[in-house]
Amino acid sequence: MHIESPPVSFEPRLEPPEDFSTLEEQLWPGGTRRDSRGELTLAGHQVSDLVAQYGTPLYVIDEADFRRRARSFTEHFPGWSIHYAGKSFLCRTVARWINEEGLCLDVCSGNELAVALSVGFPPERISLHGNNKTSEELRYGVKAGVGCIVVDSFDEIDRLRVISDDLGRPVPVMVRVTTGIHAETHQYVATSHEDQKFGLSIQSGQALKALLICHDQPQFDLLGIHSHIGSQILEVEGFARAAQITLSLVSQFQDATNDSIQEVNLGGGFGIAYVGSDEPWEMERLSDVLIRDVEKGCHYYDIPETKFAIEPGRAISGPPGVALYTVGTIKDVDIGEGFSRRYVSVDGGMSDNIRTALYDADYTATLANRTSVATPTLSRVVGIHCETGDVLVKDVYLPDDLALGDILAIPASGAYSRAMASNYNYALKPAVVGVVEGDTQVMLRRETLDDLLRLDQGEIGVGFEVEREV
Amino acid sequence: MHIESPPVSFEPRLEPPEDFSTLEEQLWPGGTRRDSRGELTLAGHQVSDLVAQYGTPLYVIDEADFRRRARSFTEHFPGWSIHYAGKSFLCRTVARWINEEGLCLDVCSGNELAVALSVGFPPERISLHGNNKTSEELRYGVKAGVGCIVVDSFDEIDRLRVISDDLGRPVPVMVRVTTGIHAETHQYVATSHEDQKFGLSIQSGQALKALLICHDQPQFDLLGIHSHIGSQILEVEGFARAAQITLSLVSQFQDATNDSIQEVNLGGGFGIAYVGSDEPWEMERLSDVLIRDVEKGCHYYDIPETKFAIEPGRAISGPPGVALYTVGTIKDVDIGEGFSRRYVSVDGGMSDNIRTALYDADYTATLANRTSVATPTLSRVVGIHCETGDVLVKDVYLPDDLALGDILAIPASGAYSRAMASNYNYALKPAVVGVVEGDTQVMLRRETLDDLLRLDQGEIGVGFEVEREV
Repeated sequence: MHIESPPVSFEPRLEPPEDFSTLEEQLWPGGTRRDSRGELTLAGHQVSDLVAQYGTPLYVIDEADFRRRARSFTEHFPGWSIHYAGKSFLCRTVARWINEEGLCLDVCSGNELAVALSVGFPPERISLHGNNKTSEELRYGVKAGVGCIVVDSFDEIDRLRVISDDLGRPVPVMVRVTTGIHAETHQYVATSHEDQKFGLSIQSGQALKALLICHDQPQFDLLGIHSHIGSQILEVEGFARAAQITLSLVSQFQDATNDSIQEVNLGGGFGIAYVGSDEPWEMERLSDVLIRDVEKGCHYYDIPETKFAIEPGRAISGPPGVALYTVGTIKDVDIGEGFSRRYVSVDGGMSDNIRTALYDADYTATLANRTSVATPTLSRVVGIHCETGDVLVKDVYLPDDLALGDILAIPASGAYSRAMASNYNYALKPAVVGVVEGDTQVMLRRETLDDLLRLDQGEIGVGFEVEREV
Repeated sequence: MHIESPPVSFEPRLEPPEDFSTLEEQLWPGGTRRDSRGELTLAGHQVSDLVAQYGTPLYVIDEADFRRRARSFTEHFPGWSIHYAGKSFLCRTVARWINEEGLCLDVCSGNELAVALSVGFPPERISLHGNNKTSEELRYGVKAGVGCIVVDSFDEIDRLRVISDDLGRPVPVMVRVTTGIHAETHQYVATSHEDQKFGLSIQSGQALKALLICHDQPQFDLLGIHSHIGSQILEVEGFARAAQITLSLVSQFQDATNDSIQEVNLGGGFGIAYVGSDEPWEMERLSDVLIRDVEKGCHYYDIPETKFAIEPGRAISGPPGVALYTVGTIKDVDIGEGFSRRYVSVDGGMSDNIRTALYDADYTATLANRTSVATPTLSRVVGIHCETGDVLVKDVYLPDDLALGDILAIPASGAYSRAMASNYNYALKPAVVGVVEGDTQVMLRRETLDDLLRLDQGEIGVGFEVEREV
């Protein structure tokens, strides 16, 4: 067991639902319904059928919803480049979808790049990110012909120059800059300095210096500037502020070189709804504000030719994903002052979704294999791990008749969950299944113990073969 | 990038070291030295040799140190059972060491049990834990003949009874109880209630009720009581308080049944030194205090025959482990008010050790492939991941001449690091190598991209084979 400082008093921020069969539209993939018997269906597939076929824990991705969200960015930001941030969730099938929808792809490791290349993703539409790319990764990116390497330090510029000379190839680069706008969930802070590992600071002059170096070197084709202010941001002003500061850098560059910057990438961080009270911006309003502010800034700084880009990850991959778990032990724990808390244990946990433990993230859950008219009971959904912090959903009203074997569904689970999965306590990584009307496909199969034990080079003993019924 | 709220001001809690070649004895495995040229050696192996052979990131386990720590518990707690908590770090080789040293083993999943059985670990010395064991795991444990199943809820008691009947085997059980003593790092709190998912509360009467049920059922052989108060605890009073409360339950049970409790397991949570300022208890003092307090309690409550057990995990597997990383990008970041912070990026990060990000844990690091007389520079060791919270060591003085290609060693890395490793950003899990004087053995081999891609069922594309030089 590890650290979690549990609140002894009990201040539910939630209202009990009026009807357990109601689905809050903003939380669920477009293809989600309740059928006539109250069972949740995903793109027409009953969750009980999905679970019977693929087991739990299971991550289900609504393909149409994923594609629609990807397309929505390209439609609402005409003329802009939309880069899908692969770190939020990447596998071959996702790379194929992103390619088919015409988006660019951001990768942040050589291995992510390899996954993308393995499905024939056009390398010229791939950007390679990272604060600490190895020389091998840089060479791999250059040889593959990626559209851009986002350089993050002077040291990397030096190494990349050598690699370019060595391979006899010019390298398209952007410079990762920090704007002093640092966004955290629900808010942003503006500081003159940023205490983090990424990029080069605009205020200190290092960003301009790096741009000028890249501009002057024959080894580089300087494409532009990349900034990124944070993640899961639910208001747009931070982006707009960061854009203004980044445009001031473009202006400085223009003044210094009489040359223009081809592209400015404003990064990602667009928040999504995890719980009913989250209010992410409508796409129309997000694009209206961002495009207008960028146009104003370009006019103000006299920047005529620059193209813009953004980098949504979670906003595309998060909402189409639903996690399904089977309910195990249910326990009412007396927490004092006349209150008790219902702990609902499911068959996954922090090994497949560490966001609640790591970021104090909020999630919600619904009874999925049936509906219920039982009394709403404030519950906490926890996992299988030997650790008190192994929580998936901190607070959610679930029906009082919830029972062992029921299926719980957690929405908005497509991003940074399976992508960050571990094998803590030898938990096996869940399968990820894509669903469309009338069809399902295994995107990532469930891990097996044999998969894990392939790494174990220890000597095997004898005499203890015990049959398991899995 | 995700949430990290970085302090803008700069209040180092550390003193610069007088000499970079000095090793703080309490932080390093027993076989750690600096050789005549100042290079770190582990059980006589130069780190540069280990890195040349196995690559980085690399986890090195000093086998003699691991075994010595295991033995130290059995020696200082004569007559007690010592259960190694496998969740801290388990693989076949570790299971073998624990068996050879005569300890018992706690597993908290069917898969951990399978690993132990695969090396011929005697099942009668294994306890099966978990707040949400599946019926399959319970059956597996009973069929394997584990020495004890630690039951965690009434629901599990019911299911286990059915399994016992079905298999025609009595089941040895302990009841997991909560004492109201809840320990967090560096301190403990005593409450009348605990807001967590494990066990059954003594205060509420549920613990006694469960004991009486298990005592009365012919399907069960009631062994005793299991309590566990937390983790990484650096003072012993919490254990002693929890022991007293647990003994009061034994007394209640004796009064109710005229029968005795065979064994009381007081759990684990014994803290270790991660940084120089940590002061874990000396083993002598820990055992003296615990044994004395337990004897006093047994006398007070008139408990004549009960045997005691403890469950160290981290205290055995943590200190023998050293993580080795290769230094990449080094960046001095202006953080305002005249201060700058040196960010030292290494080739691992939160994917192989998430403790700093997850628990705000403290670590330290040392330049390992050489020593230096350069100026101490307050540094932050960060990883490769696209996330500001990807920090390994928050604050450490490293020499000013640290350079790309240097090797950093982080001590006390054996527990809850590789055991919780993920593949975030498609990072590959590091190898774990055991070292003794004159020999090394791969315990867990380094993961490959092919290992990861075995799970990916997406269609492979054509035309983008790019040679990589790994």
